[in-house]
Amino acid sequence: MFDYISSFEHAISALKHEQRYRVFVDLERRAGQFPHAIWNGPDGRRDVVVWCSNDYLGMGQHPKVIEAMCRAARSMGAGAGGTRNISGTNRALVQLEAEIADLHCKQAALVFTSGYVSNQTGIATLARLLPDCLILSDALNHNSMIEGVRAAGCAKEIWRHNDVEHLEQLLSRAAPGRPKLIVFESVYSMDGDVAPIKQICDLADRYEAMTYLDEVHAVGMYGPRGAGIAERDGIMDRIDIVEGTLAKAFGTLGGYIAGRSAVIDAVRSHAPGFIFTTALPPAVAAAATASIAHLKASHCERVAQRMSVAATKSALRKAGLPVMPTETHIVPVMVGDPELCRQASDLLLDQCGIYIQPINYPTVPKGTERLRITPTPAHDARLVEQLADSMVWVWRQLGLPLTKRHRPLDRPELTVAAAGYSAASASSRIRTF
Amino acid sequence: MFDYISSFEHAISALKHEQRYRVFVDLERRAGQFPHAIWNGPDGRRDVVVWCSNDYLGMGQHPKVIEAMCRAARSMGAGAGGTRNISGTNRALVQLEAEIADLHCKQAALVFTSGYVSNQTGIATLARLLPDCLILSDALNHNSMIEGVRAAGCAKEIWRHNDVEHLEQLLSRAAPGRPKLIVFESVYSMDGDVAPIKQICDLADRYEAMTYLDEVHAVGMYGPRGAGIAERDGIMDRIDIVEGTLAKAFGTLGGYIAGRSAVIDAVRSHAPGFIFTTALPPAVAAAATASIAHLKASHCERVAQRMSVAATKSALRKAGLPVMPTETHIVPVMVGDPELCRQASDLLLDQCGIYIQPINYPTVPKGTERLRITPTPAHDARLVEQLADSMVWVWRQLGLPLTKRHRPLDRPELTVAAAGYSAASASSRIRTF
Repeated sequence: MFDYISSFEHAISALKHEQRYRVFVDLERRAGQFPHAIWNGPDGRRDVVVWCSNDYLGMGQHPKVIEAMCRAARSMGAGAGGTRNISGTNRALVQLEAEIADLHCKQAALVFTSGYVSNQTGIATLARLLPDCLILSDALNHNSMIEGVRAAGCAKEIWRHNDVEHLEQLLSRAAPGRPKLIVFESVYSMDGDVAPIKQICDLADRYEAMTYLDEVHAVGMYGPRGAGIAERDGIMDRIDIVEGTLAKAFGTLGGYIAGRSAVIDAVRSHAPGFIFTTALPPAVAAAATASIAHLKASHCERVAQRMSVAATKSALRKAGLPVMPTETHIVPVMVGDPELCRQASDLLLDQCGIYIQPINYPTVPKGTERLRITPTPAHDARLVEQLADSMVWVWRQLGLPLTKRHRPLDRPELTVAAAGYSAASASSRIRTF
Repeated sequence: MFDYISSFEHAISALKHEQRYRVFVDLERRAGQFPHAIWNGPDGRRDVVVWCSNDYLGMGQHPKVIEAMCRAARSMGAGAGGTRNISGTNRALVQLEAEIADLHCKQAALVFTSGYVSNQTGIATLARLLPDCLILSDALNHNSMIEGVRAAGCAKEIWRHNDVEHLEQLLSRAAPGRPKLIVFESVYSMDGDVAPIKQICDLADRYEAMTYLDEVHAVGMYGPRGAGIAERDGIMDRIDIVEGTLAKAFGTLGGYIAGRSAVIDAVRSHAPGFIFTTALPPAVAAAATASIAHLKASHCERVAQRMSVAATKSALRKAGLPVMPTETHIVPVMVGDPELCRQASDLLLDQCGIYIQPINYPTVPKGTERLRITPTPAHDARLVEQLADSMVWVWRQLGLPLTKRHRPLDRPELTVAAAGYSAASASSRIRTF
């Protein structure tokens, strides 16, 4: 008899052997105290500072966003009650789609249950509606885009990451009249680098291709109204379909695409991952709308985030830590080994009250394992200092290389307790050096 | 040059030509007044009674559920802030997974952003982890299961809907030692029929197959604690993996699988649609937990739903309407033509203030277009009477056949206004016959 359970157990053992088994950190975020959170760990509840959240601007705890969620739940209930077609289209969702279309200056927008689903069913559907479509996909595109390309079932070419010459080679080889869809991201989330969007749009014009741009790590944060890198660079109108998320800088849940009405209507009418699933609850939609509307007008979150990012990069570099150069809000610190990366993360969490998830293969290539830090407006100077000191201590504990001598401090003062948590609780739980 | 926009416009025109173009009904549900809702239609806001919601028990408006959502949003914020692995595992989700595992008497459970994603990435991952797996899939399985089977990329056999003899034929042909995964639903949502779960489990035992049962249209509603049809029939322990939704009878959002720890851990560790997407917000998870916990202990919603379903079936049959026989809470009324089905739905909405979405191809086979009615505990005797009278009026308007002479009433009294809405608003908006 085939031993099913052994198959699954074997799959897990293999991951453990390769240092790829993931243990989830059970967090209790505290609205109003972000980036502080409670970690429900093996030794009970502990106060930690979260340094790896994709709630990039802390909008998930913004009073306007929380109140919009509660107000909609109280007035319209906790769920949508159906698919978009069968009783699930709610007023809050219709308003959200109008808000998104306005944000990106597009004719229409369509909301999905997640950014993952937007890409997966969106790309697949767009390509299926174009006869004999050729998809040109950046080599470092997110898994959701890869799954979308796969599901499209059409021909594809992978261009070397951000390499416009390679993209042009591939475009020039394709038949002139053949429909082509270029799919790429603006900010790549693990390296924090940015695509040459303008040059890609130039190529799209020259070779008559459609452009599909994933701005999930940029919306809310870049551009005068937070519409992303394409807005910042003044080339929003050159993107045919923009894809975004409501679950990162906008602090809620869900994903979307925006573009010309005919395109959006065709996806709305054909995408299985959109048609056959329950709509987002009005409470989630209302919260997302409140967040987008706020960030369209308010700049202080973006300014504060940039200052926090700059301060963090500077402090870590000064301390001799191997910060990968980025022009964005993502601050990767290279470790280069899965086991050491996990140990560094464990030491930071257990001993310093700092939570930074290790990023190992397959999220990044083997040998480039890293700690990925995302400073937010809520990470103040004291937290930045604590982070730098703690990482230096961890780097020394593990014998990891520091690029130069750092300042002599070897007993970093913790700011967890000082920042709103009880000193007794913090000191009893967290190593105070 | 290839004309992209024309391609998309053509796709939409084709749908319109085939009477398959969907216009979403923009609803504003009112917590505490369900099944009444505001319809934002072309002529403004109108009061309607929703008869096609999958919020089967009205739990989406239950005060406990709404309060749990608001409490969690106020305490933990509006979003999760990351994938499950990267800062997104929140306390409320961990508690929800424990609640689900307990509900189904399984070792572990895993929550996804939707039931659709549960099936799609869950089935694909399970099958990929079993070497040379053969999937046996019921012919009427939901699109999300079909997509999961496709994404698995392994061999598959489709067995005729609910036909255990055909399933046995296919099982007996496969090599004895080969891993086999039988995927099926308990309640099929468009016909309202129920799978012969026990017989399928007998075959799974005989041919050493794993069973994967989708109970999305049964959880909350069947079984002493609302765990579904398998619980009702006393055979929960014979199902290897049960899949369910939090977005129908539980009234919120999300989907899940439950089973043995090793199986769930393997899916958790390998499923791309789980790994690379933002976790559900704590507020949604807390609301779902409250709903499940309530329905585990409370029977009155299930009893009231059954009474409402029985009353609706009886009233429609007495009125001579072609109710398809079902043993479940789903009440399909056959029309058999896409254009007439749409017209019936339009007349009910425009003239009678009753919202029942037409169900056309590809959701159901061509020639079996229908109105699908889902009575809830909130649909009382007056609403049932109004429904029957209105449908008879519509059937006559359209020249659709009635199976026998119904009672002579041809001026049904509307109950919309009487049930909590202003008479002035209702009478000015809705045809009063």
